[in-house]
Amino acid sequence: MISWNNLDTLKSYKELGDLKKVSVKEVMSGEGGAKRAEEYSVPMAEGMSFNYAAKAVDDDILKGLKALADEAQLCDKFAALYNGEVINTGEKRLVLHQLTRGQLGDDVVADGVNKREFYVAQQKKIADFAAKVHSGEIANAAGEKFTTVVQIGIGGSDLGPRAIYLALENWAKKNGCFKLEARFISNVDPDDAAAVLNGIDVAHSLFVLVSKSGTTLETLTNESFVKDALKNAGLDASKHMIAVTSETSPLAKSSDYLAAFFMDDYIGGRFSSCSAVGGAILSLAFGPDVFARFLDGAAAEDKLAANEDVLANPAMLDALIGVYERNILGYDCTAVLPYSQALSRFPAHLQQADMESNGKSVNRFGEPVSYKTGPVIFGEPGTNGQHSFYQLLHQGTDIIPLQFIGFKNSQTGTDVDIQGSTSQQKLCANVAAQIVAFACGKDDENNNKKFEGNRPSSIIIGDRLTPEAMGALLSHFENKIMFQGFLWNVNSFDQEGVQLGKVLAKKVLAHETDGALKVYSDLLDI
Amino acid sequence: MISWNNLDTLKSYKELGDLKKVSVKEVMSGEGGAKRAEEYSVPMAEGMSFNYAAKAVDDDILKGLKALADEAQLCDKFAALYNGEVINTGEKRLVLHQLTRGQLGDDVVADGVNKREFYVAQQKKIADFAAKVHSGEIANAAGEKFTTVVQIGIGGSDLGPRAIYLALENWAKKNGCFKLEARFISNVDPDDAAAVLNGIDVAHSLFVLVSKSGTTLETLTNESFVKDALKNAGLDASKHMIAVTSETSPLAKSSDYLAAFFMDDYIGGRFSSCSAVGGAILSLAFGPDVFARFLDGAAAEDKLAANEDVLANPAMLDALIGVYERNILGYDCTAVLPYSQALSRFPAHLQQADMESNGKSVNRFGEPVSYKTGPVIFGEPGTNGQHSFYQLLHQGTDIIPLQFIGFKNSQTGTDVDIQGSTSQQKLCANVAAQIVAFACGKDDENNNKKFEGNRPSSIIIGDRLTPEAMGALLSHFENKIMFQGFLWNVNSFDQEGVQLGKVLAKKVLAHETDGALKVYSDLLDI
Repeated sequence: MISWNNLDTLKSYKELGDLKKVSVKEVMSGEGGAKRAEEYSVPMAEGMSFNYAAKAVDDDILKGLKALADEAQLCDKFAALYNGEVINTGEKRLVLHQLTRGQLGDDVVADGVNKREFYVAQQKKIADFAAKVHSGEIANAAGEKFTTVVQIGIGGSDLGPRAIYLALENWAKKNGCFKLEARFISNVDPDDAAAVLNGIDVAHSLFVLVSKSGTTLETLTNESFVKDALKNAGLDASKHMIAVTSETSPLAKSSDYLAAFFMDDYIGGRFSSCSAVGGAILSLAFGPDVFARFLDGAAAEDKLAANEDVLANPAMLDALIGVYERNILGYDCTAVLPYSQALSRFPAHLQQADMESNGKSVNRFGEPVSYKTGPVIFGEPGTNGQHSFYQLLHQGTDIIPLQFIGFKNSQTGTDVDIQGSTSQQKLCANVAAQIVAFACGKDDENNNKKFEGNRPSSIIIGDRLTPEAMGALLSHFENKIMFQGFLWNVNSFDQEGVQLGKVLAKKVLAHETDGALKVYSDLLDI
Repeated sequence: MISWNNLDTLKSYKELGDLKKVSVKEVMSGEGGAKRAEEYSVPMAEGMSFNYAAKAVDDDILKGLKALADEAQLCDKFAALYNGEVINTGEKRLVLHQLTRGQLGDDVVADGVNKREFYVAQQKKIADFAAKVHSGEIANAAGEKFTTVVQIGIGGSDLGPRAIYLALENWAKKNGCFKLEARFISNVDPDDAAAVLNGIDVAHSLFVLVSKSGTTLETLTNESFVKDALKNAGLDASKHMIAVTSETSPLAKSSDYLAAFFMDDYIGGRFSSCSAVGGAILSLAFGPDVFARFLDGAAAEDKLAANEDVLANPAMLDALIGVYERNILGYDCTAVLPYSQALSRFPAHLQQADMESNGKSVNRFGEPVSYKTGPVIFGEPGTNGQHSFYQLLHQGTDIIPLQFIGFKNSQTGTDVDIQGSTSQQKLCANVAAQIVAFACGKDDENNNKKFEGNRPSSIIIGDRLTPEAMGALLSHFENKIMFQGFLWNVNSFDQEGVQLGKVLAKKVLAHETDGALKVYSDLLDI
């Protein structure tokens, strides 16, 4: 029997706070540090591992975290989720994004449909469609193959698919499975669509309109933008567009589209990368086989998230440590720092996934909570970040927990040897060095050159950023966010906080404003 | 006579903390809110304005901030800086980036050279070189014009120039002054250089190697990468490369480059966009006239930063309010939210400019400070951010001060009318709506749909994002950061916090490791 309780009502949480704090600097120095770096590591899918040696935990705190996981019933709650209970209580919805890539529990039947079969059927439809585009069976009016695919979507219909496309673009080119260039139009700023359209050959472009409800204003506006461009080029827009939407949306059966692929209300936008939302564009860009490999990686990582043993469940352990840092150590932000240029937009995706899920002040029953919930998430790839905001991370007045990601090998394999090492070795040397620099610091007579250390970090280490590894990474963070939501007792799957802005923007456009809103509308010439 | 004192020793700072706090929700509601929105506004250069009505200040607090500005001698310190005193005391250097775009005070002579004349001479050299590239007088070996310019640099040699290039690319295309496509190679990750080189025609590309010292490892490594690519294409690398560096660097007089343009030690990397670091690539991409207009905008905004009246000095006022929020209200982050897709990477540049400058724990004399200094800076363009992390900004457990930027008009002028409004109107309606939504919130019986409000924001409103406006924006934030550094009594112009990581990375590459560092090196196969 599951009980949903606030974090601060749990006995194990109170006990956790009483445990002796760990000095990262002390435990990471000397041979003790070497032992931790070897032992404080959990295997992930695809040969990756989650290493948390430089976190402010020890065996006692890990025991405390395990007790917290048990008392908060994290495994049971995850099982309830994947077995199809109504976990998104605010919107009275199941939460089924894991089912797009595998099945961990019972058959989930909703609205009279086996949902796993439904998602697989959509993948099959997308794969068939993509194969026809790649073969030229589906082509433009002149019978020429499409060369570019453009996603029109915002938020979860943009950030996740875009991050994954960028993550795998060079891998796909290197491995000979690259099919179509992808572009993305998201912002309602007309300069966004204008610039993308200006940079492509619309006659050879296929557009993917993505909106679950079929009513997202930004997306419909950008659709019109694109249709205008196609019309101005003398083209039939309906031969250049597909839709990804829900079966009940106005886009579902429209003759405006070559085809429509479906997701449903049980997949939140920010968790939709493995559904048709990511599936259409990624299958078109890289081929359905690559997308299937990406799903396999995510499914393998999901399995680990169901492990009852916290020390064999990287997402759960990462989540628990994060809550410990946020609520007991009092750290307000988390920086995501991938040492991989291919992951340049993955932090932006995680910023949405995490902050939109757990940036809440009420629990799942709508009662205000009296503890901190989701932190601010930000990040840029290393080594770039080292030459940017790392100064504050090392010597600023706040401690920011760090989440590193690194791969032993590059994607392209092209490299140069300078001063006795390759670029890839330099990249890896930097992330190794940063973990120790943040943890151990360095004393100096000159305070300005002194590093206090004690800055906690973890690192996910992989062999190479492949489609499977990308899927596993995505799953890891999605599940981490879910577990943290369980711990904070919030509903991680709604987003009521985005509504007020929409309502007021509509008022502005209808000129139904007064007070400050009217003044700002006037100042902005609306 | 200037005295450099810690913030918490200032009488006016203590008095400021005693003043009655302002409820943004109360003051922004009703007709009082309208009055504030009209009155709490400071003109900026290029017809822009800094509106701070939705900040947690009132006339009493503004008086307190003015007293703080006076006691901290902000104007005198800025004057000392632009008149050439050694403000970067740690490195014993002058701080002269403003001198690249104008002259606010006395002639500054250093190393026997009038520095304003030196910077102008470099701009002239760059303008002449760019004109020859554009005319084809300087061309590739086959006598064909260059079509692409690629910046090789990291940190300040990358983020600022890249953000400004993206900000003005569509404007330049629309206004017929676009000359060369620009690309950027920054990360030591070999996949970064490989991907950029894979996407360009190297035979028609000109590379700009940017490193003040001439020793930045990432940049030299990427230079080799590029030289290999040029050699493999049968090209003479020295006919495809220019250098931007200091006169004393090993790159300054090398025959490896077509030309070399100079900056100096008095311009920190993160403040170098207006020097040759930004000047070479931006003049090549858009023409020297556009770069000159950008400098004019920055110079005009610099003039405002010298105003003694806080209420006519937008950068100083912004800085004071930020310190009030950080140290008296206790807010730890600031989100930069431009409602302009062209400014997509401007927050990333400000992240460096701000966090690397003021993320310090010691004052300018090397004594630890006992108050918070620079906040975490993050941001993405609106409306994209609304569909991402705004949930947490509206309903999360931490209050994050917001810095909006908006323009009445788009750059391209291409637009569509949907549901009675253009995309540009929708974009502006959204930012107007967000200011009021964050400030005033909304009550609701259902706590989950309730918005507490009281989230402070400011907005910079401009007519259109032109080169002048971009220059003014850059100057505004550079000067804001400088004033905040004065208030916190830190040296905003060094970055000792980046050193330790470099030292340890070198050890890893030399295999001189032990303890945890050795384990991580092994795990990463170095």
